Amino acid sequence: MARWEPDTFNRLRVAARELFVEQGYEKTTVAEIAARAGLTERTFFRHFNDKREVLFSGSKELQEMFLTGLRSAPASASPMEAMAAALDAIAPFFSNEQRAFSRERHAIISAHEDLKERELTKLASLADAIAAGLGERDVKAPTAGLTAQLGVGVFHVAFQQWVSDKNKKSLQTLLHEFLDEIKGLVAG
Amino acid sequence: MARWEPDTFNRLRVAARELFVEQGYEKTTVAEIAARAGLTERTFFRHFNDKREVLFSGSKELQEMFLTGLRSAPASASPMEAMAAALDAIAPFFSNEQRAFSRERHAIISAHEDLKERELTKLASLADAIAAGLGERDVKAPTAGLTAQLGVGVFHVAFQQWVSDKNKKSLQTLLHEFLDEIKGLVAG
Repeated sequence: MARWEPDTFNRLRVAARELFVEQGYEKTTVAEIAARAGLTERTFFRHFNDKREVLFSGSKELQEMFLTGLRSAPASASPMEAMAAALDAIAPFFSNEQRAFSRERHAIISAHEDLKERELTKLASLADAIAAGLGERDVKAPTAGLTAQLGVGVFHVAFQQWVSDKNKKSLQTLLHEFLDEIKGLVAG
Repeated sequence: MARWEPDTFNRLRVAARELFVEQGYEKTTVAEIAARAGLTERTFFRHFNDKREVLFSGSKELQEMFLTGLRSAPASASPMEAMAAALDAIAPFFSNEQRAFSRERHAIISAHEDLKERELTKLASLADAIAAGLGERDVKAPTAGLTAQLGVGVFHVAFQQWVSDKNKKSLQTLLHEFLDEIKGLVAG
């Protein structure tokens, strides 16, 4: 794996995302990404195995943000309150500037079975990590798993809405709306 | 694909499941499965691409049972009530006799990344099918998606509990317990 060169890594990632939005993922080559970042292809391959890897390079940070959000909730918070705090913690990551890339990424992933599988695997790992994070808060196993499934389910539906063409709401607004809707659904 | 020979298909499946439980999935060969069923290997390969396919041969029926359960709910049922009816409809599929096979299957899938991905893909398709089934009941898109995520989440956690060594409860009991717990979680 790459030595710790966050600046190089980020330059490549920003360049790749810009090109994916400007000309589409399929048309973009590793050579173009490297050129845009002012780096060599060899440097690209020190950080990423291939172009696809760029699409998934945010999932580790996303998971970290989720866990930091869980830890930031007061000790008195219920599992769902901690989950809501975690969803609040990740929302700023999905800014309006991020939306164009997220939309392109979503379209690409939806069109490729192998990428869909990889995305599902990442979401499942996220749910496992959240369940473990709730475990650190002394939430017992099936409750932690259930809360994690609920949180990832809300995130999944809100995210799909957020990247749809018609939507103009922020991810945070959608997350709040869906958390509220779940209360109504389950109570009603 | 195979011609419609449900009896042959089921004989092969029953034989495979018995052998997986008796001697483990890894040790079982296609030749043994065919011999146990009193059929040829060629017949096996008319129904399944490989041994792995047997592990996933129930997912279409499971999805059908979910959808039948949704349709069986009265028109006045709320989305969650319809979801609960669907969970009730699938529970008998996971009988105590089925548990030994489900447990072996779960252990095998957990140990292989590619099988895990396939299982996650099946669960995601199930959630999509349930959301579409709720759509037939005039439930609007984000609500249908949210209810489907909730239902599949409850199923996922209940199933993991059901196949764990310590558990002695039926899947139906676990599904009811977790549906109740979700109410407490979301309200509390």
